[in-house]
Amino acid sequence: MSLLFIAPDRDLSSWKDAIHSVDPNIEIDIWPAIQDKERVQFAVCWNHPKHLLDGFPNLKAVSSLGAGADHLLSDESLPKSIDICRVVSPSLVQQMKEYILAAVLNIQRNFVRYIRQNDNRTWQPHDHPSPKELQVGVMGLGELGRPTAKQLTQLGYQVSGWSRSAKEIEGVNTFAGKDELHPFLNNIYILICLLPLTDETKGILNLDIFKQMHDRGWIINAARGEHLVDEDLIYALDSNILQGAWLDVFSEEPLPDKHAFWNRENVIITPHIASITKPNEVADQIVGNYKRALSGLELNHKVNRKLGY
Amino acid sequence: MSLLFIAPDRDLSSWKDAIHSVDPNIEIDIWPAIQDKERVQFAVCWNHPKHLLDGFPNLKAVSSLGAGADHLLSDESLPKSIDICRVVSPSLVQQMKEYILAAVLNIQRNFVRYIRQNDNRTWQPHDHPSPKELQVGVMGLGELGRPTAKQLTQLGYQVSGWSRSAKEIEGVNTFAGKDELHPFLNNIYILICLLPLTDETKGILNLDIFKQMHDRGWIINAARGEHLVDEDLIYALDSNILQGAWLDVFSEEPLPDKHAFWNRENVIITPHIASITKPNEVADQIVGNYKRALSGLELNHKVNRKLGY
Ligand SMILES: NC(=O)c1ccc[n+]([C@@H]2O[C@H](COP(=O)([O-])OP(=O)(O)OC[C@H]3O[C@@H](n4cnc5c(N)ncnc54)[C@H](OP(=O)(O)O)[C@@H]3O)[C@@H](O)[C@H]2O)c1
Ligand SMILES: NC(=O)c1ccc[n+]([C@@H]2O[C@H](COP(=O)([O-])OP(=O)(O)OC[C@H]3O[C@@H](n4cnc5c(N)ncnc54)[C@H](OP(=O)(O)O)[C@@H]3O)[C@@H](O)[C@H]2O)c1
Repeated sequence: MSLLFIAPDRDLSSWKDAIHSVDPNIEIDIWPAIQDKERVQFAVCWNHPKHLLDGFPNLKAVSSLGAGADHLLSDESLPKSIDICRVVSPSLVQQMKEYILAAVLNIQRNFVRYIRQNDNRTWQPHDHPSPKELQVGVMGLGELGRPTAKQLTQLGYQVSGWSRSAKEIEGVNTFAGKDELHPFLNNIYILICLLPLTDETKGILNLDIFKQMHDRGWIINAARGEHLVDEDLIYALDSNILQGAWLDVFSEEPLPDKHAFWNRENVIITPHIASITKPNEVADQIVGNYKRALSGLELNHKVNRKLGY
Repeated sequence: MSLLFIAPDRDLSSWKDAIHSVDPNIEIDIWPAIQDKERVQFAVCWNHPKHLLDGFPNLKAVSSLGAGADHLLSDESLPKSIDICRVVSPSLVQQMKEYILAAVLNIQRNFVRYIRQNDNRTWQPHDHPSPKELQVGVMGLGELGRPTAKQLTQLGYQVSGWSRSAKEIEGVNTFAGKDELHPFLNNIYILICLLPLTDETKGILNLDIFKQMHDRGWIINAARGEHLVDEDLIYALDSNILQGAWLDVFSEEPLPDKHAFWNRENVIITPHIASITKPNEVADQIVGNYKRALSGLELNHKVNRKLGY
């Protein structure tokens, strides 16, 4: 029996160590060096090459190396009989809370402007709103979105949230489903995307949505690049529909050198670092799911293939 | 009876309106246009010209327009019989919490680096510590320091605090007095100054202190410029004793164009905006103290002239 890691361009040695510190007896393969394809029963993947996973006759389940499983679901060659799970951890939640909070504070308190002013020795104060004057909207109220929305209310922001099924979260004005997207967007100054990437959410950050927000607002995308229609953002910025964007994820990563997002005053680019899965923090749950798969038990944090997340 | 505002280079009309919306009958003078010096019984000041306040024979008390009263105490011509008070408000606390939290998050999560990387289209992730691996020290545990320290513990940082008299704050490792400054500094990676400016605290951010911190740490100064020995910071940065500094206050403001702090990779300069007193949020307490002064009652938020804060 072997547990296979597939993550092109990543050094996976710390993953091997982390798994072995939970259970030293687990046999591990690291793609592309695979000893015996027939022994592979569980795979942990991040951006695996498509049409690779159908070559393991005894594969039972696949786990994403991170919180999103879109890279697995988009591989049509993955047999339908194979269960998919993902990683959920307090550390991912904590990091996302930090990332979003920092982005919101930097926008509210003009820090991006001040940092840029430093470059030309400009001393120029700008007014800032108080959090209670600032309407923030969180799209996606799952493992990451819900605690992030809560955190923002604790700092005093006016927070709305949007999800597929109805939710109740203390202090958050919640909306659900397509029908409530329009009222959710009304007056939102900072729109935060923490949705999974599915057929329904792809391209959801588009001009139509931006126009329904508060004038000259901001978007923060820390979910997936494909949620955003790049040309629509450029158009919205150029025509003053939006004021700025804080982006961690992109349709192509690394963001190509020639991309129009680079070198714009109010577009902040971070290199997909919002929430990083740390091997020793999730090795336990990966080993757990590996053993569940071998014993034919239901996986934890299983992905619903029909819903796409 | 008149209430006098003195704040050179500031438009004080919104202050006048705010006071009048609390009590329309209060007579207000705005320096330098003073109708009758003898009528002035209360003055509200921000960086007033020295030797001005001894020219009002019936002056009973003086309030700072902000949280700090150092600009009043340093005026030796201010008669000892005149009481001094300052402004304390939830809005000042909230803004300072936001400011410090943003600075700490930006340092922890490398955002300053990422924003700078944007300028040359660089996609380069950097590791970041978790808050529980990050030792933060708050100097000054008063109206602003205490809630700021608490806020940082809530985000998961390891927080120590230092004050003159001993304090107990849940989740914060507290130290008091000169003797405990050394143990307080041990292992501090981010040192935050929220002290009042007094004879004892002037120049406290110096090379000796920096050397006692964690190697290559950061300082955040949001108190007063004179807390920091400018040359010591430059030396500490150049010799890798400190890694960076996030500064809101300076010995000379606006920071002169030729100052060595400008245009340094890891020195962030904000133009004294950490916590701004908003007229309508404090008009009430200024009017309150004005009336207390007229009736000979003890002032609220009175400054201890001996201690200097
Ligand atoms: N940038 C990074 O470093 C990073 C790190 C980790 C994760 N991420 C991204 O963050 C995403 C969210 O992660 P998570 O763990 O919070 O996911 P999750 O627990 O599955 O939550 C997804 C949320 O989105 C809602 N949703 C899904 N489809 C929707 C639709 N069509 N309309 C409205 N709401 C919809 C869900 O609604 P219900 O509650 O009704 O199901 C749920 O609230 C991941 O998929 C990944 O793409 C990025
Ligand atoms: N940048 C901005 O926009 C901005 C805005 C507002 C205020 N500020 C600055 O922030 C400062 C602090 O404001 P605050 O309202 O928090 O003041 P505060 O309530 O008077 O608190 C001062 C704190 O410093 C401690 N302290 C004083 N002298 C000390 C010494 N020699 N050694 C150790 N600790 C000492 C005090 O100790 P005890 O508790 O034992 O008395 C107290 O905890 C103000 O004075 C002002 O300079 C800056």
